[in-house]
Parts: sequence; C-alpha cells; structure tokens
Amino acid sequence: MIKVTLLYENGDGKTFDMAYYEDKHMPLVAELMGDNLKYYKIDKGIGGRTPDAPIPFLAIGYLYFDKLADYQEAIGPNAEKIIGDIPNFTNIQPTLQISQVVE
Amino acid sequence: MIKVTLLYENGDGKTFDMAYYEDKHMPLVAELMGDNLKYYKIDKGIGGRTPDAPIPFLAIGYLYFDKLADYQEAIGPNAEKIIGDIPNFTNIQPTLQISQVVE
Repeated sequence: MIKVTLLYENGDGKTFDMAYYEDKHMPLVAELMGDNLKYYKIDKGIGGRTPDAPIPFLAIGYLYFDKLADYQEAIGPNAEKIIGDIPNFTNIQPTLQISQVVE
Repeated sequence: MIKVTLLYENGDGKTFDMAYYEDKHMPLVAELMGDNLKYYKIDKGIGGRTPDAPIPFLAIGYLYFDKLADYQEAIGPNAEKIIGDIPNFTNIQPTLQISQVVE
C-alpha cells in the first residue's frame, strides 16, 4: 500500500480552515481521483512533545493507493485543480511525502 | 481517537534502521504501553513531491489511543525506556505531534 502524506507545517501567521478541508477539499480530491484512490484520512494537530511546545503541523492529510502508478495516474490530469484549491483553506505550502505502508 | 505521530526527518548523514524499528522498537513500545495503546502503524518514506526531490521523512510512526489521558498514562512511566532505545535504530531526534483523527 502506498500513502501520499500532505503535511501542513505550523508557523507564524499560518492559517488552516479545517472545515473547508474536511467538507470541500478532500471530497474534491476524492472525486477527481476516482477509483485510483482507495480512501483518505485527516489529522488535526492539537499538540507537540510538551504541553507548551508549538503544534508541529496544523493538519496532515493521507491519500491511500494500492500502488504508486495509481497515484501517478490520479494526480497527473488533476494536479492543477487540486493545487488551485489550496489557497481556499490555507496559506501553507504543504510538504508532500510518498510512503510505503510497512505495517 | 488520538494519534501520536513520530516523524523522523531526513537530512545529511541521517540514518534509520527500519528492520529494528519494525521488529524491536515498536513492539517494545506496544509492550510497555499495554492496553492504553490501541494499535500502531509504520510508514517508510520512499519519495517526495517530484522524482528528484529528497524524501522529507525516512520514517513516520503512529500510535493510536482512545483519548489523550491514555497516552499520558502510557508514556509517563515508560518515556525513559522508549527514548533510550532510539539510538539503537536512528540518529534522528523525531518530531512528536499529537493529533485528533478528524476522519
């Protein structure tokens, strides 16, 4: 299983509209990607290592695919629309990680 | 559901022994934390945004709890043993994020 992880790093002046992300952006991504996308998950950052530490990431999104080629096929024709929607919910440029699910 | 995420950021000279992490470290964490821990997951970083981009994180580990108090109870008496095992598989100081699983 392949997981594409989008990490929205926290920082001064960074904003993130979780309601839009959950109700509009991720459903849009799922609709555009169709059957290539198995499912998605969303984390909301609520804390760091210690109670007074900043939250490292305001949000982390996960897209699951059976294989890397499915992601490439899904993102290719849709990248522009997906990236174009990002300013509607955040001023953060997300870090994109491709992972293999080990366990 | 609460998720504690450990992110092992990539960088010059950074190393990560996935076999040890999967076969020794995470089972140790699970044994120490007992029933407070629901389950855990492991990602292995294999790529970034573009084929020639560096991998942002060599590994990401996830610990799932029903509630924050369960994590606090689980980590309190075991933090020293868990942190003490980290040099056995990596020279990376992991970033720790506490998240709420939104979806």
